[in-house]
Amino acid sequence: MVMVAGYSEHIELCTAQEMLKKAFAGASVKSTVEKNISDALGFVLTKDITAHRNVPHYAASAVDGYAVDASSTIGASHATPVLLDPSRYQWMNTGADVPQWANAVLMVEDSSVDGDGLLVFRSLTPSSNVRPLGEDVMAGQIIAREGETVTPALISLFLCAGIEKVKVYKKPKTLYIPTGDEVITMGRWLSDPNPKSGTVAESNSLFIKASFMEWGYDVDVSPVVPDDPDLLKEKVSEGTKNYDMVLVGAGSAKGRRDHTLEVFEDLGKVIFRWIRMKPGRPAMAAEINGRPVICLPGFPMSTAVVLWSLVYPLLNLISAKDEEPEYMIKKALGCRKTCSTKLLVQHSSPPGIEEWIRVKMAKVGDTIYSWALTSGASVLWALAEADGIALLPASALECEKGTDVSVWIKRKADLDRRILFQGSDDPAIQLLVTPIRRRGGDFVSRAVGSMGGLAALSRGECHMAAAHLLDDRDGTYNDSFIERFSNGAKWERILVFYRTQGIIVPAGNPRKINTFEDLCTGDIVFSNRQPGAGTRVLFDHLLKKTGKTPSEILGYEQQCTTHMEAANRVLTGLADATLGIKSAADALGLDFIPLAEEPYELVIPTEHMAHPAVQALLESLDDSEWKDTVDAMGGYRWTD
Amino acid sequence: MVMVAGYSEHIELCTAQEMLKKAFAGASVKSTVEKNISDALGFVLTKDITAHRNVPHYAASAVDGYAVDASSTIGASHATPVLLDPSRYQWMNTGADVPQWANAVLMVEDSSVDGDGLLVFRSLTPSSNVRPLGEDVMAGQIIAREGETVTPALISLFLCAGIEKVKVYKKPKTLYIPTGDEVITMGRWLSDPNPKSGTVAESNSLFIKASFMEWGYDVDVSPVVPDDPDLLKEKVSEGTKNYDMVLVGAGSAKGRRDHTLEVFEDLGKVIFRWIRMKPGRPAMAAEINGRPVICLPGFPMSTAVVLWSLVYPLLNLISAKDEEPEYMIKKALGCRKTCSTKLLVQHSSPPGIEEWIRVKMAKVGDTIYSWALTSGASVLWALAEADGIALLPASALECEKGTDVSVWIKRKADLDRRILFQGSDDPAIQLLVTPIRRRGGDFVSRAVGSMGGLAALSRGECHMAAAHLLDDRDGTYNDSFIERFSNGAKWERILVFYRTQGIIVPAGNPRKINTFEDLCTGDIVFSNRQPGAGTRVLFDHLLKKTGKTPSEILGYEQQCTTHMEAANRVLTGLADATLGIKSAADALGLDFIPLAEEPYELVIPTEHMAHPAVQALLESLDDSEWKDTVDAMGGYRWTD
Repeated sequence: MVMVAGYSEHIELCTAQEMLKKAFAGASVKSTVEKNISDALGFVLTKDITAHRNVPHYAASAVDGYAVDASSTIGASHATPVLLDPSRYQWMNTGADVPQWANAVLMVEDSSVDGDGLLVFRSLTPSSNVRPLGEDVMAGQIIAREGETVTPALISLFLCAGIEKVKVYKKPKTLYIPTGDEVITMGRWLSDPNPKSGTVAESNSLFIKASFMEWGYDVDVSPVVPDDPDLLKEKVSEGTKNYDMVLVGAGSAKGRRDHTLEVFEDLGKVIFRWIRMKPGRPAMAAEINGRPVICLPGFPMSTAVVLWSLVYPLLNLISAKDEEPEYMIKKALGCRKTCSTKLLVQHSSPPGIEEWIRVKMAKVGDTIYSWALTSGASVLWALAEADGIALLPASALECEKGTDVSVWIKRKADLDRRILFQGSDDPAIQLLVTPIRRRGGDFVSRAVGSMGGLAALSRGECHMAAAHLLDDRDGTYNDSFIERFSNGAKWERILVFYRTQGIIVPAGNPRKINTFEDLCTGDIVFSNRQPGAGTRVLFDHLLKKTGKTPSEILGYEQQCTTHMEAANRVLTGLADATLGIKSAADALGLDFIPLAEEPYELVIPTEHMAHPAVQALLESLDDSEWKDTVDAMGGYRWTD
Repeated sequence: MVMVAGYSEHIELCTAQEMLKKAFAGASVKSTVEKNISDALGFVLTKDITAHRNVPHYAASAVDGYAVDASSTIGASHATPVLLDPSRYQWMNTGADVPQWANAVLMVEDSSVDGDGLLVFRSLTPSSNVRPLGEDVMAGQIIAREGETVTPALISLFLCAGIEKVKVYKKPKTLYIPTGDEVITMGRWLSDPNPKSGTVAESNSLFIKASFMEWGYDVDVSPVVPDDPDLLKEKVSEGTKNYDMVLVGAGSAKGRRDHTLEVFEDLGKVIFRWIRMKPGRPAMAAEINGRPVICLPGFPMSTAVVLWSLVYPLLNLISAKDEEPEYMIKKALGCRKTCSTKLLVQHSSPPGIEEWIRVKMAKVGDTIYSWALTSGASVLWALAEADGIALLPASALECEKGTDVSVWIKRKADLDRRILFQGSDDPAIQLLVTPIRRRGGDFVSRAVGSMGGLAALSRGECHMAAAHLLDDRDGTYNDSFIERFSNGAKWERILVFYRTQGIIVPAGNPRKINTFEDLCTGDIVFSNRQPGAGTRVLFDHLLKKTGKTPSEILGYEQQCTTHMEAANRVLTGLADATLGIKSAADALGLDFIPLAEEPYELVIPTEHMAHPAVQALLESLDDSEWKDTVDAMGGYRWTD
């Protein structure tokens, strides 16, 4: 821990949490309020609650039957019934008031009406089938204790015990202040179909509001504050006077527009700056006017992890919820259960830094695998798409394949009905997810290229692969590769469709690329695919045919893992050309020079054919809605 | 399963769940609505959602630094920097728009300003540090799928992707109809300090409303419907026309006022009646006007289990949440985690019936114990007080001590800071819970009598016992018993106070009981304590001194486990007298004839002395607030 100007920098997450707990544990940030019991759900009681009344408030029959004096039933049995005259018994519904003269209730099953009288078949002791006054709670009894959270059962019990109001800790009011000249509010963003380059939607406030709602807390969102330290200072100062907590969006890094630190230093006491975690590193906390102020780094995943790990515990602290850290992180990120997994692919984590990863999961055989979707804090999609979140410890550097990772699962993931596909990327295959789900299965995929897929299959690391691998010795597709990787195991092959591969260039083809040779002029930036991708195999084959070498291709080492990613490089101007399928070019409105048609095959080990999701997938290949969509994408030809 | 009049009776819970799922899986009970994204949290999407825009919508700098053309940096290193003139670089904040002429961003750390120029220390490839257009999601990409629940991350992603509204399944509107002549609504109940005997507060609606709120659903509550089948019929019929689901409170048993079955049969189709579970057996379901109608048995715990196991899954079904049963039951009852436990005491469960039990838990050594608080469905306190819920399978009959029970934990229970007390009951000791918690410990207790406590201690089944056992051979207290039970182990003894024992009789002492002999006249109903209770040992000692035998005491076999319970029998008129401590008599305004003063000792094995909650307890014994309260209770004398 480095101390600079009175605060800590680059501290561990647990240290940051402890510092906040220490700074704001006092009573000064908490306030109390009296609530009607029916409005008190989820609030924390400030003191022990004592029953005002006995529950029940009278001796009540616990059954349907007859009130009697127990002594009048002595010796009764089915063999020796006792006959009672009407003055000695009285009908009781369950819950009825047992009369003063009686001290027991005979169950209706143990009796028989006999003219005016009642035949008794069981001998009772005093108190039998009577709920004495106060059986549930007695007046004066403590029925809930200070520090306990009001639950549905407590509310109900309070009413029965005659309690109308309870004193609780208020829930904190929080203000979120988004900052940044580039930030566009929701209304303007949605109404402008072509927002200016360099701008970004003010989306973090939606994430924050929804998270608070899930946690049962409220948050107000201020208008966006531009990159002006004076304006921010005014807003933060005002916020800390009217709210229990203030969150500031971004501005804590070291960029030219990052003023948050100076504002916090001017207004109050900085508690810490920067945390040794990824993402979320530029988080910052201060005490201003006695209130906690937290700076949330601006990337969506950074905002999320700081909310989960610092803001949610603070909200609980201020509302006097004394919760265990393990419970809080699970609650904060909406974890439904934890799951032990093995890493499917190696993951490098920065040294000395805890890393939050967003993972997908799949179960192959008895092994539950997980893999990180991306480590980019800016990628919001990965947060929405992840099955769960894992926090890799600071000691984890090179997490090898097979490393144990505990995942907080945050969405439904029925792993027994899910198959993992690894192999050649294809946009049409991605569209199978919904048809498969409609048929009761689930489908997750990793684009690892044709060769990568077959290799994963041979290692038992997926249920299914897909390949379009040209063997340039004989012009066949897949046969020799499958023979090699399957190593004698039985693998089924399903020819899904033929696809057209070609050169993808910007609309209008400004560089006049028409043949493969045109790529080799030395001033064309090409965007390549990863080694082992069928498309790269095809590229290398075509390159060889032109008699050129990779060193003559500018950008040969640029590796994209999907057709869309590669085509997108062209669209964005980061590359002049790529090799890919027609549907990717069509989707982005790019020009396409066709070069070859290739078969695209699914490869499934026979042992997985009975998997419910494999069955769902096979049925989905005939789904007419899916086939129509694929036809509309262009560049696909069905098998006969 | 018995089929009567076209419906199933006495079915298993899982069968009931399946029947409801089958009856209401169709689209007819579901309806859809378009929501603004910021109002869509927790709703289920009716179809796949496709991004309208690329995110980001321009090539954005991923770092703070300088936009450059990668080719201008070839060969750059710290040893061989390249100098760029101002026309060939441009400052970029993170997120800034990378200009058309550039294809990479140089991190500020890899550069140095040199006069007008920029020294470049690193050779870049095209795309370095650039987030291409669509890096997060691309226009046209499916970003959420039908059947998925809208999360905070999705809402945020929708905004970024230019989506304003999404179509979702509506959440169901539910009506709860409480019934019964005896049921008093909240307002009347609270305003009447002495409600009539035989009445009960309409508390279930509070439990239901709060549970729905925790689940994110709404429920309306109708006025109480009296026990009149025509009125109920009208209300249910109307309800099924205006709501998606109707719940009816009680009336499904076989009592004289139970009309719900006939109403359901008249209005629609009964699906099942009665479930093989305890409590909740009289649950019933029907389809009326195409809507599900569920009858909730009236006792609080019965209502709770039917809500958890049937109503919550139905709510999800209607709102298209396809959830796993395991997840639903946990969510329904607010389970924060599951825990494997061993039963602390034997539990008898009815044959062929699943049983829901409310348990407390404690960890002694390495064993986590659980025990049922009560099996009475009428006891609401136990639901509020329970650490968790367990569902014993139908096959569990005599669950022996040590049986494995999996508990759904529903409140904070820090077992490492909690001690389990078993032993002699005392109201003053109960009041130690709050002082102990204030000191960071926790304390749970079971009143098992002095002897039971020492025996539990010797078996390692608690951290602490308490005893006041008279050895009538020599008039000493505890010494000989502790020697026998400890069996050589080191046990510490802490004398807490002396208590006055005596005869507790109704106020005014109507039966003129003044000596112990007066109890033995044969017409006095006495309420006794359980074998092994110190008070019973004292009673037997005093009885022996009078020369009488137990058979001469009417009610000798009536066993109460606490002083308050025994005194309450006297208050209620179920007994004429009991033996107990003065504070119990005082609490209930009963008369008290003092007989003896006895020492009350805590007994703690030395190995547990360092337990944080034992330390907290020892400190709490000096808590002046607690001591003042004990003094005010009467009948206690402190040691010097």
